Amino acid sequence: MKTSVISVLALSGLLWGCGPGSDGEPSAADTGAAQDPLLQQAQTLFSPIPDQAPERADHAMTPAKVELGKMLYFEPRLSASWLISCNTCHNLGLGGVDLMETSIGHGWQAGPRNAPTVLNSVYNLAQFWDGRAADLMEQAQGPVQAAVEMSSTPERTVETLRSIPAYVAMFGEAFPDDADPVTFANMARAIEAFEATLVTPNSPLDLYLGGNDAALTDDEKTGLALFMDSGCTACHGGILLGGSSYQRFGAVRNPGAELLPPEDRGRFNVTGDPNDEFAFKVPVLRNVELTAPYFHTGKVWGIEEAVGVMGEAQLGKEFTGVERAQIAAFLNSLTGEQPEVEYPVLPVHTADTPQPDPWLGVGAGTH
Amino acid sequence: MKTSVISVLALSGLLWGCGPGSDGEPSAADTGAAQDPLLQQAQTLFSPIPDQAPERADHAMTPAKVELGKMLYFEPRLSASWLISCNTCHNLGLGGVDLMETSIGHGWQAGPRNAPTVLNSVYNLAQFWDGRAADLMEQAQGPVQAAVEMSSTPERTVETLRSIPAYVAMFGEAFPDDADPVTFANMARAIEAFEATLVTPNSPLDLYLGGNDAALTDDEKTGLALFMDSGCTACHGGILLGGSSYQRFGAVRNPGAELLPPEDRGRFNVTGDPNDEFAFKVPVLRNVELTAPYFHTGKVWGIEEAVGVMGEAQLGKEFTGVERAQIAAFLNSLTGEQPEVEYPVLPVHTADTPQPDPWLGVGAGTH
Repeated sequence: MKTSVISVLALSGLLWGCGPGSDGEPSAADTGAAQDPLLQQAQTLFSPIPDQAPERADHAMTPAKVELGKMLYFEPRLSASWLISCNTCHNLGLGGVDLMETSIGHGWQAGPRNAPTVLNSVYNLAQFWDGRAADLMEQAQGPVQAAVEMSSTPERTVETLRSIPAYVAMFGEAFPDDADPVTFANMARAIEAFEATLVTPNSPLDLYLGGNDAALTDDEKTGLALFMDSGCTACHGGILLGGSSYQRFGAVRNPGAELLPPEDRGRFNVTGDPNDEFAFKVPVLRNVELTAPYFHTGKVWGIEEAVGVMGEAQLGKEFTGVERAQIAAFLNSLTGEQPEVEYPVLPVHTADTPQPDPWLGVGAGTH
Repeated sequence: MKTSVISVLALSGLLWGCGPGSDGEPSAADTGAAQDPLLQQAQTLFSPIPDQAPERADHAMTPAKVELGKMLYFEPRLSASWLISCNTCHNLGLGGVDLMETSIGHGWQAGPRNAPTVLNSVYNLAQFWDGRAADLMEQAQGPVQAAVEMSSTPERTVETLRSIPAYVAMFGEAFPDDADPVTFANMARAIEAFEATLVTPNSPLDLYLGGNDAALTDDEKTGLALFMDSGCTACHGGILLGGSSYQRFGAVRNPGAELLPPEDRGRFNVTGDPNDEFAFKVPVLRNVELTAPYFHTGKVWGIEEAVGVMGEAQLGKEFTGVERAQIAAFLNSLTGEQPEVEYPVLPVHTADTPQPDPWLGVGAGTH
């Protein structure tokens, strides 16, 4: 599915905050179509993607910042090797992920957890599986420095960006109030601004929530009902159908060491709180059809299998094969319009640009 | 530099074949502007990029083939790991190269030679540094199979493409006369069709050749004169300023083992002809500003240094520092309008798609 990203203002006007107790103007959803109890229940539990990302002080999204952020998102020279960009692991052609169990980065090293999608990620309550970054600006600074990802440093990154006149000019336009605009933090701010544009509106579920009864098939509606009635929405509701809480994986039953290796204690590593042991940020289900393999280990490739794991581990419930297929059918209705992105032409380096160092910390056996 | 890729029909009408002896209609280039001897000499030696790629039987460029080829060009699932696409080493944001000495591919292995640019490559007399592929269709089949690049096989590639319904449909549209359109050869044909669109018209040199005297600075004109008068154009002329012949690197003086390692005998490996020992396809100079590092080893980063090497090795001539800078100034006028490409949204895999195998033939030490 790919069409022009049209404004979702109309949808948002209808639905944003239109759960029970909404006192907005009467609308199609409130009157005719909302008589359908399935639709009414769904409108209570899910929200379409707002027409604008939330604005916060110090995180204003200006066109200059978004454009710079787009270039930096595709910029492999942010990595020590000049081979790896944000888009390597969060590929905008592949649902904002890399389709790996866990990402492969600098020196072909495997990272510790599966790469979450960048799509709609601005609506997560925090970033990374363990929520250790408060927002996308904080998040964007991690992979650039991680030895198994881009393996660079803030100093090298800033030296690189300062050596390229076109970037210096763009940082100046994006951060006009800064005396010294080319900084590691501003790099991350620009990437955050671009990432905040990467939303996927108008999935079949959203069209259904907007009153288009035909947007979901009968199978998808059965799956939707099952999804809501089985308790999945306790964690997978709201805008993202996830991303709004931390939950212990294996709340009811431990899913086993392959899916929940004892050495990765999840949110506990951030908070030190024993209640957070093996808790992870609930994964977003929007575009889940595109974002296999699943779970923080990336060990499950099939959506139906993942539904089965969740039922047992989180709900103590054994879904039948038919039920798993119906829920999976519903989940496939969460694929929205993918962002349209013109591939950026990046500015040429200069003699002052630190040269690529693909063998930094890497055994030279393959060199 | 980046603007809409406008038709270069007008330019081509003026200049294509307008060297001495052209019997076309009188034009600006033939009359007023062509009185300038520098311009006249340049028009004899260089040609702008034609408005259309050369059509050959069995290589027709249809929109369906180009669109499919674009997706395949960015498709990492053509590689065993699902991490490497054509665009990894021929990055359209980076002048169609990867800015590596030699490319890094599957398992972080280094390839044997520097990646040549894909831009304008349809006009090369053959592909690869040693010309071992007759055209882009043949070329595109190499990296997919090379163990140090994408490390896949024709069988796995076809199995992958056949498992994805959207690709099956697109191959059907791109190859409507084929009973069995999803083949490895057709994959390569589609990639070739897309690559043939990757041209960079309207460089300052082209504008100058078209009669715009102000398109080159005085320094660039001095460099142009020096470039022509020193004999560089014996190999670096025509449409691409290169790409039209094989030449022995070190024709006059051996540039040394770092630049010309004795174990890589170049074109000799293809023909077995002793006359071809250490001969390589002459590199294209269009967009040379963007395509460092230089030579088949990628050992030289600066254009001025590369000019110095060429002068000594090929012409037996020691350019002064000023001359090298002037020639480099001219070479930087060869940067054309870069292709505008919308980043493709790739179709989702299915349960039948062979899963990624990033550790195929790779030591699992980093796993």
